[in-house]
Amino acid sequence: MGELLKASRGERVEHVPVWFMRQAGRSLPEYRQVRAGVPMLESCRRPELVCEITMQPVRRHGVDAAILFSDIVVPLVAAGVDLDIVGGVGPVIAEPFRTEADLPPALAPEQVSFVDEAVRLLTKELGEVPLIGFAGAPFTLASYLVEGGPSKHHEKTKALMYGQPELWHALCARLAEITLTFLQVQIAAGASVIQLFDSWAGALSEADYRTYVMPHSSFVLERIKVPRIHFGVGTAQLLTAMGEAGADVVGVDWRTPLDTAAALVGGRAVQGNLDPSVLFAPWEVVEREVRRIVAEGRSAPGHIFNLGHGVMPETDPAVLTRVVELVHSL
Amino acid sequence: MGELLKASRGERVEHVPVWFMRQAGRSLPEYRQVRAGVPMLESCRRPELVCEITMQPVRRHGVDAAILFSDIVVPLVAAGVDLDIVGGVGPVIAEPFRTEADLPPALAPEQVSFVDEAVRLLTKELGEVPLIGFAGAPFTLASYLVEGGPSKHHEKTKALMYGQPELWHALCARLAEITLTFLQVQIAAGASVIQLFDSWAGALSEADYRTYVMPHSSFVLERIKVPRIHFGVGTAQLLTAMGEAGADVVGVDWRTPLDTAAALVGGRAVQGNLDPSVLFAPWEVVEREVRRIVAEGRSAPGHIFNLGHGVMPETDPAVLTRVVELVHSL
Repeated sequence: MGELLKASRGERVEHVPVWFMRQAGRSLPEYRQVRAGVPMLESCRRPELVCEITMQPVRRHGVDAAILFSDIVVPLVAAGVDLDIVGGVGPVIAEPFRTEADLPPALAPEQVSFVDEAVRLLTKELGEVPLIGFAGAPFTLASYLVEGGPSKHHEKTKALMYGQPELWHALCARLAEITLTFLQVQIAAGASVIQLFDSWAGALSEADYRTYVMPHSSFVLERIKVPRIHFGVGTAQLLTAMGEAGADVVGVDWRTPLDTAAALVGGRAVQGNLDPSVLFAPWEVVEREVRRIVAEGRSAPGHIFNLGHGVMPETDPAVLTRVVELVHSL
Repeated sequence: MGELLKASRGERVEHVPVWFMRQAGRSLPEYRQVRAGVPMLESCRRPELVCEITMQPVRRHGVDAAILFSDIVVPLVAAGVDLDIVGGVGPVIAEPFRTEADLPPALAPEQVSFVDEAVRLLTKELGEVPLIGFAGAPFTLASYLVEGGPSKHHEKTKALMYGQPELWHALCARLAEITLTFLQVQIAAGASVIQLFDSWAGALSEADYRTYVMPHSSFVLERIKVPRIHFGVGTAQLLTAMGEAGADVVGVDWRTPLDTAAALVGGRAVQGNLDPSVLFAPWEVVEREVRRIVAEGRSAPGHIFNLGHGVMPETDPAVLTRVVELVHSL
């Protein structure tokens, strides 16, 4: 059961470890059942519910890791930022970030004691199966705060970044501290790997990523003592820089083959990269793609099989289970 | 005034030519005025209105080319596909594509006589300034038809592509014919360059692009006798393939520097690639970025300055005018 940890360190594995981003979520009927009537943020604050939701895909699919059920805005809300997650929209910020006075307060570990409790419940229940801790990276959190919610073009974020770089760096430095505290609480309670999600980093050129984003992600990653996975979507142009940011494993979406990615990330392990849309194709296509990805992953020192982005809600969970069996058999 | 044509052929230019994707559109008060009360599709069907809208940015900014005011779904509607453009959403298809019976009818040139008329009016008014013809590429059109409208993940499109490749290729072959007819009407009426927009191609890996998409884009591009620009967003992983698809100029978004892009597209000219969000930053930042891009563009045989995606509606048109002056001065 330690295959995921071994792969993240580039050690020899018995089989390629596998988990799925958003494995705990709307594709599972048992998830929809326990979430019925419970708002998203509320569900992240109930340790027993978090434990149950996090365990569901482990029981059902036999994946090699659990990932803490949470949301990237959870530490912001805990620190006192006024926001809500609106169904069909995403996070909506009451007062978008404009000036230094809007800097989010620091996060005290006690403010996320519900996460500490959930992780303790989970590590007991998981036994040998590792728990992946979870946090959003500073750039992605900053984009939500500046845009006031999800954004297609991140134009306000970039205007701040280019126009007021000192204020930008102050915001990202604060977000990096919040993220680090949030992850350290999870690690102290038993998380044995972490994934830092920079969902929107793919909106940037490599030069802008290195100037405005990477220092803050590195601040977080360099202070974490367990294996670190770093993931973003649409990052074909950023893989080398993301490899240098301080992660042990670079997550890759489906746009870049893993052998190409392995060469770009400089001797680190890779994670990915089945297109979540492929799960809607006939099984022969899924099987062909899984086999291709496992073969391409062998050119990296370590490979953690995953999707290239989160499981989509309409995905048939039986196909996910079959993918786990297939990956383990190869 | 022939600088754009020269750059597209890799010939020596007096100054770097410049135009902006969506230069005719919502950033201009004179556009909002003439569009008031006229639905989008209706506005594309009125030759005198199309002529006026297309001319507005040429008069205001002194750009080196006009681009026909149209929409990528115009030829589909003209061929008889039942769809509408819904404000704040985009194209909405009445009956999404599912089976061979849903194949769109072929397009007869007479069905877009309004485009022929608009282009004739325009080439008269434009004089020496070239008019860029406009069409969406088969993959992007197919995605709208299969998804029923704009899509974040293109999962139904990919499911069709992977699961029923014959039907997929039949759909794209039909769309390629429609696109070709639509462009040939524009060229016969006087368009002297064309841009084929594959807006969503960046959702694909290079392998899938080559198998499922490139043959159909190439069908169109190879039959066009005027200079051809081929553009998509988020195509860092596709630039080499897009260079091989048959264009003279490959449009590049802001994610890949033009010197990197020039090396990837194999001796072709490049177009781009200022991040449209930079236009919201202070002028010093805009100037620094424009200078960087013009310098990086010199490593390609030809460079047409443009944004890396369309002008955003909130953009200050005065900044665009200033960018044109700056590019021409370098």
